[in-house]
Amino acid sequence: MNHDNFDQQMMQRCLTLARQALGRTSPNPLVGSVIVKNGAIIGEGFHPKAGEPHAEIFALRQAGENATGATVYVNLEPCNHYGRTPPCTEALLAAKVAKVVVGMIDPNPLVSGQGMEKLRQNGVEVIVGVEEAACCQLNEGFIHRIVHKQPFGILKYAMTLDGKIATTTGHSAWVTGPASRQVVHELRAACDAVIVGGNTVRRDNPHLTTHQVSGPNPLRVVMTRNLHLPSEAHLWDTEGAPTVVFTEWGKNIPLQEKLRNKGVEVIELTPLTPAEVMQVLYERELSTVLWECGGTLGAQAIAQGCIQKILAFIAPKIIGGVLSPSPMGDLGLEKMTDALLLKNISLRHIDEDILIEGYL
Amino acid sequence: MNHDNFDQQMMQRCLTLARQALGRTSPNPLVGSVIVKNGAIIGEGFHPKAGEPHAEIFALRQAGENATGATVYVNLEPCNHYGRTPPCTEALLAAKVAKVVVGMIDPNPLVSGQGMEKLRQNGVEVIVGVEEAACCQLNEGFIHRIVHKQPFGILKYAMTLDGKIATTTGHSAWVTGPASRQVVHELRAACDAVIVGGNTVRRDNPHLTTHQVSGPNPLRVVMTRNLHLPSEAHLWDTEGAPTVVFTEWGKNIPLQEKLRNKGVEVIELTPLTPAEVMQVLYERELSTVLWECGGTLGAQAIAQGCIQKILAFIAPKIIGGVLSPSPMGDLGLEKMTDALLLKNISLRHIDEDILIEGYL
Repeated sequence: MNHDNFDQQMMQRCLTLARQALGRTSPNPLVGSVIVKNGAIIGEGFHPKAGEPHAEIFALRQAGENATGATVYVNLEPCNHYGRTPPCTEALLAAKVAKVVVGMIDPNPLVSGQGMEKLRQNGVEVIVGVEEAACCQLNEGFIHRIVHKQPFGILKYAMTLDGKIATTTGHSAWVTGPASRQVVHELRAACDAVIVGGNTVRRDNPHLTTHQVSGPNPLRVVMTRNLHLPSEAHLWDTEGAPTVVFTEWGKNIPLQEKLRNKGVEVIELTPLTPAEVMQVLYERELSTVLWECGGTLGAQAIAQGCIQKILAFIAPKIIGGVLSPSPMGDLGLEKMTDALLLKNISLRHIDEDILIEGYL
Repeated sequence: MNHDNFDQQMMQRCLTLARQALGRTSPNPLVGSVIVKNGAIIGEGFHPKAGEPHAEIFALRQAGENATGATVYVNLEPCNHYGRTPPCTEALLAAKVAKVVVGMIDPNPLVSGQGMEKLRQNGVEVIVGVEEAACCQLNEGFIHRIVHKQPFGILKYAMTLDGKIATTTGHSAWVTGPASRQVVHELRAACDAVIVGGNTVRRDNPHLTTHQVSGPNPLRVVMTRNLHLPSEAHLWDTEGAPTVVFTEWGKNIPLQEKLRNKGVEVIELTPLTPAEVMQVLYERELSTVLWECGGTLGAQAIAQGCIQKILAFIAPKIIGGVLSPSPMGDLGLEKMTDALLLKNISLRHIDEDILIEGYL
């Protein structure tokens, strides 16, 4: 095995470790760390959640005194500042490691490179950029949040091969198969919040949970201008997962009270727009927000720059219908040449369905 | 190289030879043949068009006296009856070949297996079923025509990732990129006819030719109940490719005459339905018909069983629009569980676009 290949494997191991905390670390990134000496792993760790120690610290603890002269792999540049925990660079120097292999530098332009610089100044060899694309993708939500001061928005929809999300009567259970729905549950577990509009609550009465398949439930968010919602709904059961309802000032006060009594948080916000809601979620330190809404709200979210990634689940079936709804509302684009182009398209078979992912 | 692998390679070579006549053989199948002796190819041939000799005959001619004791590969069971040409089985026996390897048996239940039987009775070793799936797929139009007494219908459409074939204003140039459009030109060359509705003629004024990229132009077919069509259109230029217009009895007689004067064939047919048109094309010995129509005619064609295969070209772009047209009109299906399921789905990247193929 050549050295480069070994570095890549160790970095992939860091990413695997990091993923164990999917959906739990915001506003912090997903980070894993591996410590290697004489070709053997002597310590591993990952960052479990904000406020707890960073990945390198767990790995150093496991390695103990053996860390002296060892190589540390970590998917994100070690921090060099005092936050909720002391800087990792100090711990690495104290442990006298010989070399640090970094997946990607810190995306925050104000501190980017400082951790590596500190290590190098103190005689530690530093390599950067191993499996960089995979490292960036794992933390795309964190990176977007740091750089753009906004949560990373993912729009997900499921449609037939003829572009429909329901029949002419509105019937939509189910467009895609169980395997795709399982992927959606896993996706929710990796996100900090899931947003739907009032229509989705009225029509589908969704749970928006991970259905216990994996990982934590996201914060469930409803956007509804008029708060014309049923007083009983799965989303009002807040025992397993929290729910926030955004509505405009003074709307349907009796229902507001009922919802608050059930443990639902109600936030009044006028005007109620996707961008305003994303701002609130940003201030609450959320990184990744999944939009599982219909076409009207989805189009508003796109128009306001709240969506960075699209996941289209396509079922290999034809339903037809001139009036059957399709996944996207009005964007005001009159020429096909004005269409919003997606980049970095990837394709995946999910049982009988097809998942197309891309970035706006 | 083991023997099985060699057989597969020779059968693939047959298919490659057969494809040289794509779009030219109907109502006959696409057939290629290779003759091998002592591990070397001594003869090759393919069936160029109906009325001309079959593939085996060309291969035998090239092999000459060397064919004695040789192995013949052919993707379709050799014929054993007098049609426009004498039976290939007689030519194979006269050439004293030792072995015949067949891709698939004749799909016509009345003659299926007779060619192989005749060869076996005369001491020739016969193997059948090598690369059978690929052989069936190459001649899926021919097979469908024989078995169902109807041409094989392919519905092709191009849509955005949000399921739209045009903007709210009807603008649609272009949904997909040049590479996808090139694939469509190649597809036309492999089909015997292309069908559109009057709307497509009025709105897009298409050529529906192969644009000289490859192979023959298909017969261009327009279905229009009222014959409200422009008197000038690319389709009325019949120098490079023939055009047939189907309309109902007695509609727009002056335009009928103008079109006939330009060399366009006009057929009056009441009621004008996809099934009736396919019947006429069947009687004209066409095997494969490409529907490049809009959603209304496409839905009628599906409802009447005229479509067996769907090709959906998906462009990685979002155009939006509640009223933007999507690829399929009304099928009268009210529950998502009533949707028409596609089988044998395959995926293909075409430059930036994605092609999803499946069978109804």
